[in-house]
Amino acid sequence: MEEDLNQSAKETTTYNMEAQESEVENDPESNSLHQPLIKRKQTLSSTPLAMVGAKVSHIESLDYEINENDLFKHDWRSRSKVQVLQYIFLKWTLAFLVGLLTGIIATFINLAVENIAGYKLLSMVRYIEEERYLMGFIFFTGVNFILTMVAAVLCVCFAPTAAGPGIPEIKAYLNGVDTPNMFGATTLIVKIIGSIGAVSAGLDLGKEGPLVHIGSCIASLLGQGGPDNYRIKWCWLRYFNNDRDRRDLITCGASSGVCAAFKAPVGGVLFALEEVATWWRSALLWRTFFSTAVVVVVLRASMEFCNSGNCGLFGQGGLIMFDVSGVTVRYNVMDIIPVTVIGVIGGVLGSLYNYLLHKVLRLYNLINEKGKIYKLLLSLTVSLFTSACLYGLPFLASCTPCDSSHPEYACPTTGQAGNFKQFNCPTGYYNDLATLLLTTNDDAVRNIFSTNTPKEFHIFSLIFFFALYCILGLFTFGIAVPSGLFLPIILMGSAYGRILGIAMESYTNIDQGLYAVLGAASLMAGSMRMTVSLCVIFLELTNNLLLLPITMLVLLIAKTVGDCFNPSIYEIILDLKGLPFLDAHPEPWMRNITIGELADAKPPVVTLNGIEKVGRIVDLLKNTTHNGFPVVDEGPPPVGFAIGATKLHGIILRGHLVLALKKKWFLQEKRRTEEWEVCEKFTSVDLAERQGNVEEVAVTKDEMDMNIDLHPLANRTPYTVMESMSVAKALVLFRQVGLRHLLIVPEYQAAGVSPVVGILTRQDLRANNILNAFPHLAKSKGREKGN
Amino acid sequence: MEEDLNQSAKETTTYNMEAQESEVENDPESNSLHQPLIKRKQTLSSTPLAMVGAKVSHIESLDYEINENDLFKHDWRSRSKVQVLQYIFLKWTLAFLVGLLTGIIATFINLAVENIAGYKLLSMVRYIEEERYLMGFIFFTGVNFILTMVAAVLCVCFAPTAAGPGIPEIKAYLNGVDTPNMFGATTLIVKIIGSIGAVSAGLDLGKEGPLVHIGSCIASLLGQGGPDNYRIKWCWLRYFNNDRDRRDLITCGASSGVCAAFKAPVGGVLFALEEVATWWRSALLWRTFFSTAVVVVVLRASMEFCNSGNCGLFGQGGLIMFDVSGVTVRYNVMDIIPVTVIGVIGGVLGSLYNYLLHKVLRLYNLINEKGKIYKLLLSLTVSLFTSACLYGLPFLASCTPCDSSHPEYACPTTGQAGNFKQFNCPTGYYNDLATLLLTTNDDAVRNIFSTNTPKEFHIFSLIFFFALYCILGLFTFGIAVPSGLFLPIILMGSAYGRILGIAMESYTNIDQGLYAVLGAASLMAGSMRMTVSLCVIFLELTNNLLLLPITMLVLLIAKTVGDCFNPSIYEIILDLKGLPFLDAHPEPWMRNITIGELADAKPPVVTLNGIEKVGRIVDLLKNTTHNGFPVVDEGPPPVGFAIGATKLHGIILRGHLVLALKKKWFLQEKRRTEEWEVCEKFTSVDLAERQGNVEEVAVTKDEMDMNIDLHPLANRTPYTVMESMSVAKALVLFRQVGLRHLLIVPEYQAAGVSPVVGILTRQDLRANNILNAFPHLAKSKGREKGN
Repeated sequence: MEEDLNQSAKETTTYNMEAQESEVENDPESNSLHQPLIKRKQTLSSTPLAMVGAKVSHIESLDYEINENDLFKHDWRSRSKVQVLQYIFLKWTLAFLVGLLTGIIATFINLAVENIAGYKLLSMVRYIEEERYLMGFIFFTGVNFILTMVAAVLCVCFAPTAAGPGIPEIKAYLNGVDTPNMFGATTLIVKIIGSIGAVSAGLDLGKEGPLVHIGSCIASLLGQGGPDNYRIKWCWLRYFNNDRDRRDLITCGASSGVCAAFKAPVGGVLFALEEVATWWRSALLWRTFFSTAVVVVVLRASMEFCNSGNCGLFGQGGLIMFDVSGVTVRYNVMDIIPVTVIGVIGGVLGSLYNYLLHKVLRLYNLINEKGKIYKLLLSLTVSLFTSACLYGLPFLASCTPCDSSHPEYACPTTGQAGNFKQFNCPTGYYNDLATLLLTTNDDAVRNIFSTNTPKEFHIFSLIFFFALYCILGLFTFGIAVPSGLFLPIILMGSAYGRILGIAMESYTNIDQGLYAVLGAASLMAGSMRMTVSLCVIFLELTNNLLLLPITMLVLLIAKTVGDCFNPSIYEIILDLKGLPFLDAHPEPWMRNITIGELADAKPPVVTLNGIEKVGRIVDLLKNTTHNGFPVVDEGPPPVGFAIGATKLHGIILRGHLVLALKKKWFLQEKRRTEEWEVCEKFTSVDLAERQGNVEEVAVTKDEMDMNIDLHPLANRTPYTVMESMSVAKALVLFRQVGLRHLLIVPEYQAAGVSPVVGILTRQDLRANNILNAFPHLAKSKGREKGN
Repeated sequence: MEEDLNQSAKETTTYNMEAQESEVENDPESNSLHQPLIKRKQTLSSTPLAMVGAKVSHIESLDYEINENDLFKHDWRSRSKVQVLQYIFLKWTLAFLVGLLTGIIATFINLAVENIAGYKLLSMVRYIEEERYLMGFIFFTGVNFILTMVAAVLCVCFAPTAAGPGIPEIKAYLNGVDTPNMFGATTLIVKIIGSIGAVSAGLDLGKEGPLVHIGSCIASLLGQGGPDNYRIKWCWLRYFNNDRDRRDLITCGASSGVCAAFKAPVGGVLFALEEVATWWRSALLWRTFFSTAVVVVVLRASMEFCNSGNCGLFGQGGLIMFDVSGVTVRYNVMDIIPVTVIGVIGGVLGSLYNYLLHKVLRLYNLINEKGKIYKLLLSLTVSLFTSACLYGLPFLASCTPCDSSHPEYACPTTGQAGNFKQFNCPTGYYNDLATLLLTTNDDAVRNIFSTNTPKEFHIFSLIFFFALYCILGLFTFGIAVPSGLFLPIILMGSAYGRILGIAMESYTNIDQGLYAVLGAASLMAGSMRMTVSLCVIFLELTNNLLLLPITMLVLLIAKTVGDCFNPSIYEIILDLKGLPFLDAHPEPWMRNITIGELADAKPPVVTLNGIEKVGRIVDLLKNTTHNGFPVVDEGPPPVGFAIGATKLHGIILRGHLVLALKKKWFLQEKRRTEEWEVCEKFTSVDLAERQGNVEEVAVTKDEMDMNIDLHPLANRTPYTVMESMSVAKALVLFRQVGLRHLLIVPEYQAAGVSPVVGILTRQDLRANNILNAFPHLAKSKGREKGN
């Protein structure tokens, strides 16, 4: 609700998504990748709607700017040295707690998944051994069905925002978009239980994305002192009552989540840096590193505890997933050719995956729109299909005799973990497809990554596996359960790598397991387009530094190839959801338009007087949806200036106006107030709280005629730019400094000129919105980015 | 020469540093750590002087801002798609070449050092074997003396900026400070040869810092198309003729340098990110990663080539320095106590080292100021002292019998590399001090890091070694040869760690070699205060990911402890040199002063009219040292405005004024020019070139009365802030967006008000300068930072 005068809240909720859908479907020529799910109005100020979870919500911006008003200054001056130390201490304590809790919850999730999935698989194996295949199928499918139902019902009924990975929304939050209901206590609990259910159900999804979201939720809850309704009102926490400190804490949470998912502390920090965060500084690097260090210590301690057998079926599973540190990796400079092939194909496949997933998500949205029951049915259908394939396909594979030349591998195995699964084969034989399918996803990855086993998997089994996981990967992601993208892509990629390895067997000496690792890396880079962080995550996963140069090459090639076709998967999801994410790079055509022209295309700016009538304020708040109003003083002019001088005093936020009305900060006469008056009435804690709606405030008729002195509440130092600045340059400023409102000042200095020409918000600077208002710019849009 | 009206260039060069020195020495109470070597004037606009290399130079800022004038816009519009692709292609080609050349030069340096030092040591060993100890001493000392002399003479006579590591200057450059003569071809060549000489001479310094500087030099030279006097005028390169693209390329160069030094590609990228760079974005992360990948491939290829014995004495030395990947690291949660001890002591020692090094550097400056011959003498004295200690001390150590229970270690050895040096001992015995001292520094580190050799070094030998390298580390760094800080600190730290390991032997099972690694890490963190990048560099050095959690802990503790005492060593050097580096964090007291107050403390701003007399411009350029002048138009006002309206058209750079004078862009009448006129006269390449001095331009008397139309040359969209903004907020803006000039606009909008109140530059926002002009702020300075 940034800047929209004419659109009421009612209109927006009755908005019909299907109309938009069918439009797109009717026009096969339109590049639907650039069509957002959320319909936009054809003026500059589009309705700030976005999909959060599966719901359409109103989106606001966060206040990362320091609000330099009189109260802030007073608060700053009165802050003693002890309080500053309190703040620093608290900052580090919270970073510690984020790491600690994320580590504990990650351990809990791993424990639960390994045990539930383990006992499920053991029981199924018993049916198979007794040759009661139908009973086995019913049991397997039934358990998976129930587990999926638990996850889906929780997600659909209690916390729609817990569905999916949550990483795009966190990325948007750290960019300054206030994604609603993302970091609540309900979301956290649903995400934890839902993730356990969905992963144990054998669905083709990971716990990695959800863990990032869980880490961020923990950080957000800690920063605000607990769930919304039961907050601890601890006075120390008041220093954290601002969006800047919460942003830093959530960055810590996100990196702790990645670290807990992959046991990759450096990778976690880099993931947060490269993919998630928009603003970054050295101090934050250090703090996130501290959080991830705590996570590692917690994970290590819990592993030590579980190694003594206290954790049921939880072995070393679910943590270091693919330890290939024991393998001597041999490759020479000539191996650059197969590596290039892996990278190129991986890049193409990754971008193809992005393209198809985008289509599937649009289709799913049509279904999900129809109601909760459809969402549930969709999830359960996917679960049934997955179970049927996982159980049925291994019967198609022929049994392979165990290779007795490798006595170090147990073969065949029947337990929940382990390579060379016996399944329906006689003793001495194993079923290679069952080895990949009838196990947890983590174990499947470990099996397919296994080294020195070049003959273990038949090429047809691998192709079956690859095809199945391509289909599952596309159709599982969009269902209403917590789901990560990492594991499906790793599974697909490792199968593709191993297939390629078998195909190129005669040319190189690279190990099949290494091919699988490189295939997974290339598909990840082709889809997610990360480089350094992926490289470090893979290093920490495989625990083998000798792989570094070869992994780097694959990642660089796959990303380059992928970038030729479409944006990264997270960007696609952000765009689909309509979240107003600001990119780092301005589009080239943004150089050809000034912000003055943008401001002209918008309704005129609404300003307030320094001392304003209560009635006008109530009116404005009720009839506009603006969140910031410039405060302008007209005369008396300072000595030496002509009559008609105006002064830009600052900008006041909607929330602070509502607060002034609530607290009845009214004056009978028109006068400037003193600092002590304001400090008596308001505290800086009041200003930091998100204020309610203006409808909740009761103002009597008499009060309507009274005045409010806005001077002490207004931010004295908003960022300003001249109207002649190009949009490109303004966008860079807006994003770099982390603004919510950017005031446009006139070039001219004269009496009678308004000191503010317009206000820019995040929505105004979005490329799509500008193109809608200025269609002629679209012609020059075809040009490539120059940066 | 940012903003100084009254100070002529002559005054500044006659400035006497000794006076300042003696002042400090006379006042033992003054905290000399905060006293820069460069004297500042007691007004806000201090003289922008700084030490670059060992010379006092005038410092300017770089233009990272996009100069949106008419020519730029014309150039932008006319840029075709092919040219954009050319630009992208060139960007990646240059990144590739930076990596390639850095890799080749690093290999060359390693090769040269290993061979020179190797043959030197072999000959010396022969003298020892023949018991001609005096001849051995004369030979050893003489060779070292000559090698040092070569390095020092080159540095002193040809390129003073090649002395030292160069990292602080690169850091300042990337912050926007135009450090002169840092990236020339002479500097590059002197740095390469000097580094070979100094390292082969056995001085206590490393080639790591110099390699970073070498990488940056290569990047800068490539970006500008060759050395200053012999530039390739290739039209493609014109896109690189701006400070922004050069900055990105130099970042690539710096990370390539670190990568080449430690064979740590990820560590290199992170070092550039954490320590060196000020601005950073994801695209750059990817490009630097590409450069470091190229470096790794080059290093690997050259190692493969050298393994076949083509490179003389060059074995595997100088690259992966301390490969401990074969070691099984065992530690449990209780080992957290010794690890904490290492970290705490390391932090204290590191900050103590910073403190002492600062004192020594000030002392050295006194000596260096006396002339070139003193600089040379100082370097040669250090060389003689080092040689004497290295050769003499091993005679004090007693011979130790070889441990026959470890047949995998050759003992004793006599070659240039290898553990358990025989030196003066009988067969079957080794001299542990000779093992550490009479070898290259890289090999010394490898020997002291060696694992499974708990009894190899006697504790007194280690204490000797530690004490010697503390002294050498303090007194070697400041001499006039290329010198890195990494290796001296690693040597000290590893000795300290191993001593601690022996002291704590009875309490834990941690290996002595691991103690040495952790000691080195703790001292590095205590002195340099990096975290993530150091951690990754150590991982890549030791090639052992299991060390990760324990290394992280040590680094975090040591940095925290160190930060309690003083800033990092690079910050200390930056401060000593007087480079106007802008910190990320504003000081707390900066919230209590507005930029309007700053502007009042400065001389009034000098503005130009849109169409200005040539005479006035020549006058201004000759009599001021400003680098930017606001361009203000006075009437005719636009329709509807009162008479007396003024308009801020933009800001024009000194260089562009000089260019306009040079090109005789003169008009007889006072009129606005058309775009085609400008584009005929100027090209965007002209504007990008650094222009000469105004003194070189000859303007006739007649021409003095003509006019110049400044409109098309002025940057239309300077960043502006209101005078009421606090300095803290303005500083954040200034640094985040990378500005050179920040215009202050008035709050008031009225006829007769000048549209510009003042200009802020980098120098104006430096804490020291503000405190000099506003001493009362210093009182509140004691408060801690709140962010």
